[in-house]
Amino acid sequence: MGDPAGVGPELVVQACADARVHEVCRPLAVGSAAVFRRALAHLNLPARLAVVGDPADDSPAPPCIACLDVCGSSAMDAPCGIVDARAGHAAYEALVAAARLALAGQVAAVTTAPLNKAALWKAGHEYPGHTELLSELCGVTNFAMMLYLPPGDAIRGRAGLGVVHVTLHQALREVFAELTLERVLATSRLAHAAMWELKGAMPKIGVCALNPHGGEAGLFGTEELTVIAPAVDSGCAAGLDLHGPHPADTLLARARDGEFDGVVAMYHDQGHIALKLLDMQRAVNITLGLPIVRTSVAHGTAFDLAWQGRAQTSSMIEAIRVAARLARERALARRELQSAGASAQAALPIGQTKG
Amino acid sequence: MGDPAGVGPELVVQACADARVHEVCRPLAVGSAAVFRRALAHLNLPARLAVVGDPADDSPAPPCIACLDVCGSSAMDAPCGIVDARAGHAAYEALVAAARLALAGQVAAVTTAPLNKAALWKAGHEYPGHTELLSELCGVTNFAMMLYLPPGDAIRGRAGLGVVHVTLHQALREVFAELTLERVLATSRLAHAAMWELKGAMPKIGVCALNPHGGEAGLFGTEELTVIAPAVDSGCAAGLDLHGPHPADTLLARARDGEFDGVVAMYHDQGHIALKLLDMQRAVNITLGLPIVRTSVAHGTAFDLAWQGRAQTSSMIEAIRVAARLARERALARRELQSAGASAQAALPIGQTKG
Repeated sequence: MGDPAGVGPELVVQACADARVHEVCRPLAVGSAAVFRRALAHLNLPARLAVVGDPADDSPAPPCIACLDVCGSSAMDAPCGIVDARAGHAAYEALVAAARLALAGQVAAVTTAPLNKAALWKAGHEYPGHTELLSELCGVTNFAMMLYLPPGDAIRGRAGLGVVHVTLHQALREVFAELTLERVLATSRLAHAAMWELKGAMPKIGVCALNPHGGEAGLFGTEELTVIAPAVDSGCAAGLDLHGPHPADTLLARARDGEFDGVVAMYHDQGHIALKLLDMQRAVNITLGLPIVRTSVAHGTAFDLAWQGRAQTSSMIEAIRVAARLARERALARRELQSAGASAQAALPIGQTKG
Repeated sequence: MGDPAGVGPELVVQACADARVHEVCRPLAVGSAAVFRRALAHLNLPARLAVVGDPADDSPAPPCIACLDVCGSSAMDAPCGIVDARAGHAAYEALVAAARLALAGQVAAVTTAPLNKAALWKAGHEYPGHTELLSELCGVTNFAMMLYLPPGDAIRGRAGLGVVHVTLHQALREVFAELTLERVLATSRLAHAAMWELKGAMPKIGVCALNPHGGEAGLFGTEELTVIAPAVDSGCAAGLDLHGPHPADTLLARARDGEFDGVVAMYHDQGHIALKLLDMQRAVNITLGLPIVRTSVAHGTAFDLAWQGRAQTSSMIEAIRVAARLARERALARRELQSAGASAQAALPIGQTKG
C-alpha cells in the first residue's frame, strides 16, 4: 500500500485492476481495506474490493480486487498529502505483512508503493528506506538497490538496463569509508546475478569510476586504482563480464545505447540522476540480495498529487510485471535444481544464490 | 585547434567551412597551418587554407579558411591518435595564442577544440584542463564551467539549459572542503549572469543538493542546511531567482522539462552525467567568469576516431554559434553602457560583470 497519505493506495488499486497486471500474476493488495475502498471510490473505478482471509484463498476474478487487511483503523485517520505518524505506521504494517507472506512462500513476490521516510520515522520506525527495512526483515547484510529500466524507447539493450548502487542512503561524505574492494565486488556480483535473470544469458556489466574522468590515472582521486579496478579484476577472474572503472558520465550514456546490460554505481545520485532522466515513469526499483523477490516504483509518495486521481501508474505496473518475471525465473531455477539434484548446482550462474 | 593527435583539427576545418558558422561570424582557425592543411586533404574538403598575418586582415571569402599559424613545426611530427608531448605543446600554443587575441580584443570570442590532459602534462603544462589554464591566462579566480544545451528536442526551456559546476576537476573526496557558502553563491551568480545573456530575461536557476534526497533534512548529510540553503537565501536576497537545494536526480529531470533555465551542480559528475545523457553531441562547454567569451566542445579528443573522417561536428558548430551569440550580447551591453553613461550601470543584470 505504501504511505496512505501519498499516491500509493491509488496506484495499488489501479494496478490491481489493470489487464497488464492480470496477464502476468494474481495481485493481492496488502494494507488497509478501508483506505483501498476510499481510493476506489475516489477514482470512480468499476472494481470492488474482496477482503480475503488467507492469501492461499482462490483469487476473486476481476474486476474484484483481492485484499489482505493488515492495518489498524488509524490508517484512515491520517490526513491526505501530509507527513503523519499514523500513515507512516500503516505503511510499515503493510510492508512487514507483505514481506512475511513472501518469506513464508505464501506470495511469489512483493511490489511496494512509496512510503514517506519522515512519516515512518515519526511512527518510530527509523530506517533510511524500504531497502534497509526489508534487508533487516529478511536477515541479510549483502543487499543492494537496483534501478531497472525495461527495454524500450529510452534503453537500446535487449535486456533493459539495471543500475546497482554500492552505497545508497547516506551522506556523500560517508561514501568513501564504505567503498571497499569487497563491497564493490559483492555489488557487482548482485548486478551480474540480477541481469542474468533478466537477460537469460551472461550480462555485460560496466563499473563506474568514483571521481571525474575516472580519476585521470590518480590526478583526481585514487579510489579507481586502489579499490574499483582491483574489484573489477577480481570479478573478471571469477568469470563475471565486468568492465571499468569507466568515467560515470560516459559509461551511463554508453549503457543507455545498449553497450552494457548493467552498471555498478558507487553512490545514490550517480545512478539516480541517469535513470530518472532516462525514464522516471517506467523505472523499477529492485532490491537485490534478498531471499524474496521485491520490486518497487522508483518515485516517491508525491504528496502534491495524492488523492487527486493524477498519479501515473506506469512505474507501478512495470514494477509488478518485473516482479512476476523474476518470481517465474526463480521458480524455474528452483525446479531445475530440484529435478537435476546436486549436480545442477555447478551450472548456476556465478554469483546467484541457490534460492 | 586542440590536440593535433585527436579530432580537433578535423572539427576546426569542417566547422570553418560550414554555412551555419559563416551565418553568425567570421571564423579564424588558430593553430598549425600544416596540421590544418593535412586535415583538409584528409577530409577531401573543397576548401583551402589562407594564412593571415594579422586577425584584423580582411577575411578571405569561403571556401577559403582564414588561419593564424602559431605552432612550431613539431606539431606535424606528433603521431595521430596517441598521447604525445609535441601534440600537447601544440594544443597549448594554439590555446594561449587564441586567448591572447581575445584579451587584446582582436577576436570577439574563442572556441576551443579538445585537448588531451596527459599530452598537455607531458609537454610540461600541468593544468587540470582548459578551464583552469584560461582562468590563469585571464588572471581571474572566480570562474566556473557551464555545460549548455541549446533549446531543442532534448531541452524544453526556450533558453536551453545551462549546468554550472561549483567544483570541477578534483577528487570527489576533496569537494567537501571546497563547498563554501561564498563559492556556491559566486557560482550561482555566474550561472544567473550567463543564463541572463542567453535568455535575455531573468533566468530561473535550480541549485542541486549535494547528498541523496537533498540530505533528508540532515539525515543524509548536513551541507544542504549549513552551506547550500544559506547560499540560496543570500542569492535570493540579492535579487537572483534561485531555488533549492533540491535533490539532484529530480532537479535535473525538472530542468530538462523546462522548469529551470540553469542548474548549479556541486561537483563534476552531477552535471556531466545529466548533460551527456541528454545530448552529448550538441552540448557546449562555456567558461563563465572570464573577461573573454570562451566556448568549447563538450567531448574529448576521441583518439579512437581521430583522422578517420568520422568525428561529429555538431558540438563544435554549436559551440561556435553560442560563442558568436555571447559575443554579440556582450558587445551590445557594452555599447548600451557607453551610450547611457554611468546611470546605465544600475540596470545591468545582477552578477554580470561590467565588461
